[in-house]
Amino acid sequence: MNADRSAHPVTMRQVADAAGVSIATVSHVVNDKKGARIGPGARQRVLEAVRELGYRPNALAKNLSSGSSNFIGLVADAIATTPFAGQIIHGAQDEAWKHGYVLLVANTEGDLDAEDAAISMMLEHKVRGILYSTWFHRSVVAPKALKETEYVLVDCFDEKTPAPAVVPDERQGGRTATRLLLDAGHTRIAFVNTTTPSPAQTGRLHGYRQALHDAGIEYDPALVLREQPQQEGGYAVAERIRALGVTAVFCHNDRVAMGLYDGLRELGLSIPHDIAVAGFDNQEVIAAHLRPPLSTVALPHYEIGAAGVRVLLGLQSAPAEGPLLISCPAVPRSSI
Amino acid sequence: MNADRSAHPVTMRQVADAAGVSIATVSHVVNDKKGARIGPGARQRVLEAVRELGYRPNALAKNLSSGSSNFIGLVADAIATTPFAGQIIHGAQDEAWKHGYVLLVANTEGDLDAEDAAISMMLEHKVRGILYSTWFHRSVVAPKALKETEYVLVDCFDEKTPAPAVVPDERQGGRTATRLLLDAGHTRIAFVNTTTPSPAQTGRLHGYRQALHDAGIEYDPALVLREQPQQEGGYAVAERIRALGVTAVFCHNDRVAMGLYDGLRELGLSIPHDIAVAGFDNQEVIAAHLRPPLSTVALPHYEIGAAGVRVLLGLQSAPAEGPLLISCPAVPRSSI
Repeated sequence: MNADRSAHPVTMRQVADAAGVSIATVSHVVNDKKGARIGPGARQRVLEAVRELGYRPNALAKNLSSGSSNFIGLVADAIATTPFAGQIIHGAQDEAWKHGYVLLVANTEGDLDAEDAAISMMLEHKVRGILYSTWFHRSVVAPKALKETEYVLVDCFDEKTPAPAVVPDERQGGRTATRLLLDAGHTRIAFVNTTTPSPAQTGRLHGYRQALHDAGIEYDPALVLREQPQQEGGYAVAERIRALGVTAVFCHNDRVAMGLYDGLRELGLSIPHDIAVAGFDNQEVIAAHLRPPLSTVALPHYEIGAAGVRVLLGLQSAPAEGPLLISCPAVPRSSI
Repeated sequence: MNADRSAHPVTMRQVADAAGVSIATVSHVVNDKKGARIGPGARQRVLEAVRELGYRPNALAKNLSSGSSNFIGLVADAIATTPFAGQIIHGAQDEAWKHGYVLLVANTEGDLDAEDAAISMMLEHKVRGILYSTWFHRSVVAPKALKETEYVLVDCFDEKTPAPAVVPDERQGGRTATRLLLDAGHTRIAFVNTTTPSPAQTGRLHGYRQALHDAGIEYDPALVLREQPQQEGGYAVAERIRALGVTAVFCHNDRVAMGLYDGLRELGLSIPHDIAVAGFDNQEVIAAHLRPPLSTVALPHYEIGAAGVRVLLGLQSAPAEGPLLISCPAVPRSSI
């Protein structure tokens, strides 16, 4: 496996010789030491020698001498099971790199021992701070070890501590999804909510009610159903949806909408002609590929990850009274 | 954000005082220095003090003094768009941790500048080696900078270099999927292959032919169709499937199967009663939740990630003649 270079990595001495300066000067330039007096000519020659020889500065030494590292830790609980965690990582990494930080990612799949090991590892690597993230928006008890550094809760929040948190704006998202249906002329709109107690359950319902209220439509609790938030739940609810005589349905998420598609089809109802459907999540692999492609509202995981890094670095502040809310944008397609 | 501990992290001197030993002894114990003579009593007292005071050894200092780091880099090209990359990360992390290594993950979303930056960052952190991974099995040209360290290609391979590589066994997977259909008594089986040239395209076809051959069934090229490997391709091919008069279909992947479900349903055909369907991938969020749940073959991303780490660490060897092949297991459900 080892190429020539790997067997004999370029040394600081070789760079110094090529640039005609001392090793100390090379060290000052590559480690960007404050206060070192180096003429522009010498600095230029060092940088050229670094590039030509392919010298790799030792980031570990740089971190150690500066007393802190350029790492930001990211603890994620479900990298392997949904693309959501991946989008949080993507956003956090882009933002971290922009500010000269490197992301240390640890996947726990919800295992407490793995979580403990991950946080210990990050603390031992003297991270600048830790993003503690969950793949769906929920309340958590922040692990005690997090308090040994700065941290931000990402896609979750802790009711017991004033830790900064960044979460999706469920109310606004629910309002936006319902408005997509209202704007198309629907007035009798069912909402298939989840059976799982969560900020999404209460927030999206709140948004649904608010959109109806703003449109001058009276809220009818009979139009709100609860099902498990997967395809199976959406399929199971189809008959009841037909019986309600609604012309439109807002589904708690895209998976429910996918199941409802199957159920409505079996009843001989077509989308959007007989019934319009709006989802939530804009889930990769599903939303854009249903028949017809699903109109939905996106969970802004990328933006949530990026905002988490900004809050951690003090570049953006979370409000004192609660989590920073990130907007869920409409993604109109052909199901309305 | 800072709790007491963070404002005043526990020092090595405090540990030394609590254990009644010198700072040098504490350093030797926590950094696991070879050759240092420390009595079992002193070692025990140090470890107890470390635990009681909550001392965090500095992994950066340990890495630097040992001349190498405990990092393994993982470059991934599509963390945000599929759960596949996440499963590779999950497997690689579990295996890395088992051997005392920490994964440095970088997401590139296929961007060459990001890839370059990621590999540079890893080299500067003196990684033990790099896993270079792609979210679908394909041929790549390994970036030149990889040659500055040890590396393993994960879910990809480079025809021009003898770099070790770990990939799924597409032939065996195609054979296994086809056998699921043969075992259920089908003899006239269509294969909806992808239009995209790839190891999956040739490997799964090879496996399909081999399974037919083993069952004494003559290969009929008219039964092999090509479509784009997404729901839209599967939907589009439904009429042709019906016209072929087959009783079973092996789909290039689960997304194609999902689209085919919709197409066959519109034609009034039921699965598996009128036509049996087998997929490939065992894609999260889809395969288990179709109606009926899809019988398929799993892409072993977790195992591929784990094997990549073992090959990098020299704990498992890749064959000299080509990539290490990881088996794709059958996942029978209700569509056959």
